[in-house]
Amino acid sequence: MSKRLTSWVESANNADTPFPLNNLPYGVFSTPGTEPRCGVAIGDQILDVQALEAAGLIDAGGAFKEPTWNAFMGQGKPAWDALRARLTDILTAGSDDQSKAGKLLTPQTDATMHMPISVAEYTDFYASRDHATNVGTMFRGAENALPPNWLHIPIGYNGRASSVVVSGTDVRRPWGQLKSPDDDKPRFAPSQRFDIELEMGAIVGTPSNGPISVQEADGNIFGYVLLNDWSARDIQRWEYQPLGPFQAKATATTIGPWIVTTAALEPFRCDTPAREFELLDHLKDQGPMLYNIDLSVTIAPAGKAPTTIVRTNYKEMYYSSAQQLAHHSTSGCPMRTGDLLGSGTISGPNKENRGSLAELTWGGKEPVTLDTGETRSFIEDGDTLVLHGTAKGEDYTIGFGSCVGTLLPALKDPFARS
Amino acid sequence: MSKRLTSWVESANNADTPFPLNNLPYGVFSTPGTEPRCGVAIGDQILDVQALEAAGLIDAGGAFKEPTWNAFMGQGKPAWDALRARLTDILTAGSDDQSKAGKLLTPQTDATMHMPISVAEYTDFYASRDHATNVGTMFRGAENALPPNWLHIPIGYNGRASSVVVSGTDVRRPWGQLKSPDDDKPRFAPSQRFDIELEMGAIVGTPSNGPISVQEADGNIFGYVLLNDWSARDIQRWEYQPLGPFQAKATATTIGPWIVTTAALEPFRCDTPAREFELLDHLKDQGPMLYNIDLSVTIAPAGKAPTTIVRTNYKEMYYSSAQQLAHHSTSGCPMRTGDLLGSGTISGPNKENRGSLAELTWGGKEPVTLDTGETRSFIEDGDTLVLHGTAKGEDYTIGFGSCVGTLLPALKDPFARS
Repeated sequence: MSKRLTSWVESANNADTPFPLNNLPYGVFSTPGTEPRCGVAIGDQILDVQALEAAGLIDAGGAFKEPTWNAFMGQGKPAWDALRARLTDILTAGSDDQSKAGKLLTPQTDATMHMPISVAEYTDFYASRDHATNVGTMFRGAENALPPNWLHIPIGYNGRASSVVVSGTDVRRPWGQLKSPDDDKPRFAPSQRFDIELEMGAIVGTPSNGPISVQEADGNIFGYVLLNDWSARDIQRWEYQPLGPFQAKATATTIGPWIVTTAALEPFRCDTPAREFELLDHLKDQGPMLYNIDLSVTIAPAGKAPTTIVRTNYKEMYYSSAQQLAHHSTSGCPMRTGDLLGSGTISGPNKENRGSLAELTWGGKEPVTLDTGETRSFIEDGDTLVLHGTAKGEDYTIGFGSCVGTLLPALKDPFARS
Repeated sequence: MSKRLTSWVESANNADTPFPLNNLPYGVFSTPGTEPRCGVAIGDQILDVQALEAAGLIDAGGAFKEPTWNAFMGQGKPAWDALRARLTDILTAGSDDQSKAGKLLTPQTDATMHMPISVAEYTDFYASRDHATNVGTMFRGAENALPPNWLHIPIGYNGRASSVVVSGTDVRRPWGQLKSPDDDKPRFAPSQRFDIELEMGAIVGTPSNGPISVQEADGNIFGYVLLNDWSARDIQRWEYQPLGPFQAKATATTIGPWIVTTAALEPFRCDTPAREFELLDHLKDQGPMLYNIDLSVTIAPAGKAPTTIVRTNYKEMYYSSAQQLAHHSTSGCPMRTGDLLGSGTISGPNKENRGSLAELTWGGKEPVTLDTGETRSFIEDGDTLVLHGTAKGEDYTIGFGSCVGTLLPALKDPFARS
């Protein structure tokens, strides 16, 4: 296992910091009165990457003039590796650049985080076997739980990029067309079964045009973020046949503020589970392409303490993001810098590993009890949901930052304009 | 009915031109050695809108410096109306601007057409009752043909914006994961059931954030293009459960080169068909929001004459684009300038009205015979498909330009890089 690197930023050397020198995750931040710009987290600080380039300490061809990571991501892996090496130099204990770079640090507590990328398109997959089995059982019965294609293709659908927001953005309970099995006709009302989905989001850095191999796909991924794919289960149940989820998934998808790069995750690679059927050649694993990342979710009623309701691990997935991206390209679909691929809800074999409330409460029939004594079937107004992710090295931890969202009550009249 | 306006561009006054002064459709064109720029079709000419603004003949705040219509569309309906009025002035017989504008004309035969918009996101609907019934019968049997939600919601799914191309772009037959009902396992092979879908594409001009009414949605639509949603039926059949079409629809979607504005289509508005069930209030028709547009499709084997295989009309739709856009926004989904909404395949009650080969040949079982004597179940390599659309006034016709695509053979090795 890899060991902790030592930085002159003291807080980056604490055993429990999520942002040691081994991590160097990328985000976009601002402070009061300043414009959003690219930065890298180190300990409890953010190093201003735009200012680093302006000062000539790094050279990315002007990519950091814009307040997203897209232009830099589009430069490809050699540029990614070069920047990471250079940032590591700058931030290593004893660096000659300490005095200059030290002036470009901002405490994270002073910063507001923004979308780290402009999302080109958003795709969501369905790739944890336990999740697909759980949801399939609830929607279609135990006998039809896992669709016949599921063990052969990483099933996915296109989501809505315009609805992706950064951690900290409040989410408004949506209205939608609903029809319970015992209603004789549908009605338009606020969703009563609003849910989370605990996922990882893979960000495409290098574009492609035409089918790509799993190996190539792995190399095209720039990094990963935490991702909460908010889901209105009652809207979904009525709308999803035959063309899949649509408005149920379009209210919001929240991503974490920090992109942890594939380079930082390298020591944590692990294999996908054993295959029930051999995959077709173009989807076969080409080395370990999942990551050992502990994941959890907390829920906190308004003004109250959080309760951890989910504990799982990214290695529970049946398909890696590289396999998903390769499949995504098979028909010739052009993939672009800034494409975001949700892993699908990450559930594991035990009840506490279930990555959505629909699974945890079995469609609302078995409410979970919080530490506050309250119970939850689905999310209630004012609840704050937080996703956490960590990968553990020998003596250090890599974190993703929190992925936070609070549910606001539905509008009384959704068509009234303020 | 409205009558033809007279222009000093003589070819715009021919009875059979698709581009009389009443039309004024918007596109992006280039000529050899020049950069793509915005233009408007008039008769057999294109008037250079970028040059018009540079010359001070129109003022759109610099929107035409970029080679797409997005910046202008984002300015909203008052700007759209003002430009149309001004272009009508400039091009009307006897205009004071004739000598200046006359120098900014390019014959359409000298021009290459480009994507008229940068597609923000692409959504495809499923809104012709005959199409949904035909396809549903083939995929799920006659008893389950029309899903229970179909008469209550304009069913749609998110497509892939990166795959939208302009008329004239060749389309490569895709590979995909296929499994016939009698195969015991899937295989990876070129699609053998590659198809067209005849649709109209509505382009969102004015963005929105939160639910909007059908009336508001109607006003936010900038215009319409012909749209061919190429579809690999064999990939679709295996992949589409439970989350909808994905790679089957991601090879390409071709749009026509000319955006016909809602202003030009105003005289052709018509009502949706009678409702079997009353729609919920937020989806109810707010006036006539479909259009009477004759549509047809021709197919031509390589080097041979075309045969018309489809004749239908946009008024066959059960839901208008305004209803689709309103539904799209119900959950709070932000809609952006440049969003493209495919109407769904436009089929009518008779066999010749069916807007896809899957329907025309009933899943390949009843091949169509072309005028050349050849037969077609699905598209063959080298075939050229062309969509046409016209709206007929009292003494003039409004055309959409042709929406053309030729199918290239599948790559022998889809992963080989040239």
